[in-house]
Amino acid sequence: MAESWATFGRDLHLDLTGPGGVRAALTRALREAVRTGRLAPGTRLPSSRSLAADLSLARNTVADAYGDLVAEGWLTARQGSGTRVAHRAVPHPAAVRPAPPERDRRPAYDLRIGTADVSAFPRSAWLAAGRRAISAAPNDAFGYGDPRGHPVLRAALADYLARARGVRTEPARIVVCAGFMQGLAVLGRVLRARGVREAGVESYGLWLHRDVLRRAGLRTVPLTVDEHGARTEELTAHRGVRAALLTPAHQYPTGASLHPDRRAAVVDWASRTGSVILEDDYDGEFRYDRQPIGALQGLDPEHVVYFGTASKSLAPGLRLAWMALPGHLADEVAEVKAAGEWGTGTLEQLTLAEFIACGAYDRHVRAMRLRYRRRRDRLVAALADRAPHIAATGIAAGLHAVLRLPPGTEPSAIEAAAWHGLAVEGLNRFRYRAPGAPPTTPPAEGPDALVIAYGTPSEHAFEGVLEALLRSLPGPVQAASDGS
Amino acid sequence: MAESWATFGRDLHLDLTGPGGVRAALTRALREAVRTGRLAPGTRLPSSRSLAADLSLARNTVADAYGDLVAEGWLTARQGSGTRVAHRAVPHPAAVRPAPPERDRRPAYDLRIGTADVSAFPRSAWLAAGRRAISAAPNDAFGYGDPRGHPVLRAALADYLARARGVRTEPARIVVCAGFMQGLAVLGRVLRARGVREAGVESYGLWLHRDVLRRAGLRTVPLTVDEHGARTEELTAHRGVRAALLTPAHQYPTGASLHPDRRAAVVDWASRTGSVILEDDYDGEFRYDRQPIGALQGLDPEHVVYFGTASKSLAPGLRLAWMALPGHLADEVAEVKAAGEWGTGTLEQLTLAEFIACGAYDRHVRAMRLRYRRRRDRLVAALADRAPHIAATGIAAGLHAVLRLPPGTEPSAIEAAAWHGLAVEGLNRFRYRAPGAPPTTPPAEGPDALVIAYGTPSEHAFEGVLEALLRSLPGPVQAASDGS
Repeated sequence: MAESWATFGRDLHLDLTGPGGVRAALTRALREAVRTGRLAPGTRLPSSRSLAADLSLARNTVADAYGDLVAEGWLTARQGSGTRVAHRAVPHPAAVRPAPPERDRRPAYDLRIGTADVSAFPRSAWLAAGRRAISAAPNDAFGYGDPRGHPVLRAALADYLARARGVRTEPARIVVCAGFMQGLAVLGRVLRARGVREAGVESYGLWLHRDVLRRAGLRTVPLTVDEHGARTEELTAHRGVRAALLTPAHQYPTGASLHPDRRAAVVDWASRTGSVILEDDYDGEFRYDRQPIGALQGLDPEHVVYFGTASKSLAPGLRLAWMALPGHLADEVAEVKAAGEWGTGTLEQLTLAEFIACGAYDRHVRAMRLRYRRRRDRLVAALADRAPHIAATGIAAGLHAVLRLPPGTEPSAIEAAAWHGLAVEGLNRFRYRAPGAPPTTPPAEGPDALVIAYGTPSEHAFEGVLEALLRSLPGPVQAASDGS
Repeated sequence: MAESWATFGRDLHLDLTGPGGVRAALTRALREAVRTGRLAPGTRLPSSRSLAADLSLARNTVADAYGDLVAEGWLTARQGSGTRVAHRAVPHPAAVRPAPPERDRRPAYDLRIGTADVSAFPRSAWLAAGRRAISAAPNDAFGYGDPRGHPVLRAALADYLARARGVRTEPARIVVCAGFMQGLAVLGRVLRARGVREAGVESYGLWLHRDVLRRAGLRTVPLTVDEHGARTEELTAHRGVRAALLTPAHQYPTGASLHPDRRAAVVDWASRTGSVILEDDYDGEFRYDRQPIGALQGLDPEHVVYFGTASKSLAPGLRLAWMALPGHLADEVAEVKAAGEWGTGTLEQLTLAEFIACGAYDRHVRAMRLRYRRRRDRLVAALADRAPHIAATGIAAGLHAVLRLPPGTEPSAIEAAAWHGLAVEGLNRFRYRAPGAPPTTPPAEGPDALVIAYGTPSEHAFEGVLEALLRSLPGPVQAASDGS
C-alpha cells in the first residue's frame, strides 16, 4: 500500500505554471485524479505527512490542498476515517453535439440588408474617443448605470438628433438601448401594459420586427405599401389599432419616402386617437439627392417615438441605439427596460458620446454618405448599361436598392446569385405574413425584385460584387417568336 | 405684403454654423418659424424668387428648402395655391416633469453591497487591451454578433474559469450576458418553458434576484441559511422544486461558505431529480485566508449552471457576465437570449477577452484581493479595538462583512450611519419575503446586523468611512443596574 501510494505521489503531475503556486498545483492534480477516476470513490488518501514526504513538499501544503478539496466536495474528512475520495458518482460532462461549422457554405459576399460596410468602421477615431472618454470619466461611471443610458450620451444624442434629424427632444426623454429591436421590445411591452392590443405595420418590412411586437402581445395589422410609402390612411379603418410602426424616411425595404400628405395624416390620426407612432429611422442619415427628410417625430413629439441606431451609421457590433420618447412614456420605458434586464455597457456609451461631441460621428456619416452614394451611382450606371430592362428603385436614400425583376424570376435570380457567391434576398421575403407563416414561402401576389444592400460589402470587394450581381440578373424577356 | 415678407426674410436667423450649409440653415430657420407659430397655419409663403432676393440667396436654395419642408410635412405645395404652412396644429412637446435631482441627499459614502471599488478600475490596462483587440479584430466582428457572445471571449472565459474556478466547460457552452441578472432572466425563462414551476432560493439574498425569477414565472421557495450556508437538504422536502439558486462560495450576504456535505447533497439532489442548480459565483475570486473554493459546477457540469460576472472583479458599468451551461441547456439559452433582444456589444467583449488573455485580469484580481483583504483586516482590527462587542462574520471572502448587532439595534444603527453620511443596509433587508411584501419591513425573527461593503469606497476614502462607521455602531448593552 505504501508503495502504491509512493507511485501515486510520483505520478501526480504538478503543473507549476498555473496560478497559486505549489498548493494550487497539488489541488489541481488531486482534483484531476478524482475526476478522471484514478482515485476511485471511497479511496482513503495517504496521510498528508506521507504524501508530503513523497512529493518533497511541506506537510502543511498537502494538508491545505486536502482541505481545499474537502471544501469543494471532492474529498471527505471524517474523524478516525482519514481523508477519502467522496462517495459520489463524478459525472463527466456529456459531449456537446458539435455545432455546425459556422462558416460552412458561407457566400463569398453578403448583399443582405441590415448592416453598414463594417470594413469602414473608424477604428482609430473610435479608439481615440474611447481613450478620451474613459480617461475623463468620473469613477461613478463604472458603477451600475442609469437604465435610460448615461446622461452624457443622452445629452449628446438630444443635440445631435435635433440638428441632424429635426427631432425635438431633451435628454430626459431619451432612452439608450442595445439595438432597435431591444427598444421595440421595450416599447411593445409598455404599450401592451397600457392596453394597446393592435399595432399597424407596413406590409413590407422585417419579419423580425413584427415578431418582436407579437412577442410583446400585440396583434399586427398590415398597411399597404406603395410608391409613396405606407397607406397610413388605412389606419382609420382599424378602430382597435393604437400604434403604428413606420419607416417614414426610407420605407424598409422598398425605399419609398412617406408622402407629405400621409405624414400629416398619420400624425393627425395619432393625435386624434391617442395613438403612438413608432418611427424606425434606421438609415435617416443617408440621403443622397437632397437634404435628409427630417424625422416625423418633429411634427408631433408627444405622439411619435423616434428610434435611431448606430447599426447603419457605424456598426451593428456596437449594439447601441436610442429612442426619443413622448414625455408620457419616458418613465415607463425606463422602468420596463430596467426590469427586463436590458443593460447597456457604460463605457461604450461614453465613447459614443465623445465620438459625437468631437465631430467624428458627423465626419464618418459624411464620408460614408459619399461612399454609399458613389456605389449607388455605379450600380445604377451598370444596370443602365448592361441590364436596362431592370429598374433600380428606392435609391434616393439608404444603403440598399430594390431591383425590379420580370414577373416570376425572383427565386431563380436568388439562386443564380448564390451560384455566383452572393447572398441576396428577394423582396417577397419582406412581405407581411400572418404569424406562423413561413417567411420563405413567396406569396403569389407580390412583385418580383431583389433587395440589394450595396452598402454591405467592403470597398475593395464592391467591383467584384457588382460584376457577379450583373451576371446573376435574368435577361430581358424574349419577345415571343412571331413566325418570321 | 411684399414689405412684410421682406421683414420676414430679414428676421429669419440663418445659423450657418450648423451642418449642411445655407440650404439647411434656411430649412431650419423656416421650420422654427412654423414651430413657434411665427408662420401661422395656412399662411402663404413668399415665392422662392422673392425670398431668395430678400436673403441674397440663389433661388434654387430657397426652392430646395421649401421642398425639404414640404417633404417633412411642415409646408404644403399645391398647384395654383403656392407654398403654404400646413393646416395642422403643431403640437408643442409637453413639459417633462422635472426629474428629482439625482444626487439629492446622496450619502457621502456608500457602503451598500453590490459593486467593486470602481475607483480602482484599471483604465489604462483596459484601454490598452481595447486598442489591441479592436485593431486586430476581423471586420466581421463589427457585424451582428453571435447571441452566445463572441467566440474569442467564450474561449478566453472557458480557459480562465477552468484554471481560476475549477469550472468544467468549453466555449460552446458559455453564453455571455449583460450582467448576472440578465443571465438569470434568460435561465428563468428557459426553465419555465421546460415546465419548472418552483425554484429554491436562499432565505437571505438579493430581492432583485428573487424578482427576476418571479417575473420569469417561477415560484420561489426559501431555504434556511445558517452558518454553513443554505440548508440544501430542505430541497428534498419540496417535491415540485426543480431549480435552486445558490451562492456556494460565499453566501450572499451572510458570507458563509456552503458546507462540503451540503455541496455533495445538493449536487446529488439535482442529479437524482433532474434539477438544475444556478450557482451565483458573484465574488468567487476574492477569498483571503485560503485558496478560493472551486466552483460547485466542477462537481457536476450537467446539473449546475455557473454564473460569473465582471461586476465585482472589474466594474458593473461594463455590463459583462457569463454562464457556463450544461450541454442540454446551451442551445435553448442562446435562442431565448436572441429572442429577448438581450444584446451585448462585441467591442467590449473583445476587449475583455484580450484583457484576460494578456494576464491583466489575473493581475487586477490579485491586486484587488490584496487591497480588499487589507481593508477587511483593518475593519476587523478596528472593531476589536473600539467595538469588541460587535463581531464581524462572513469575512473569509468577498467584498463585504456582516457586523452582528445587539438585538433590536439594526434600524437605529442604519439611521446613525446615515447621520454620519454613510449609506448602509441591514441584514434584514436581505431576508426572504413572499412576493409583494415590502422589502423594508423588518421581520421580527431575523438577527440584527449591518452588511458592510468595505470593498465599495475608494481607497483614499476608506479611513474616513471606517471612522464614521465605528461612530455609528451601537455601544455595548449596559448591564442592568444591580442596585450597588
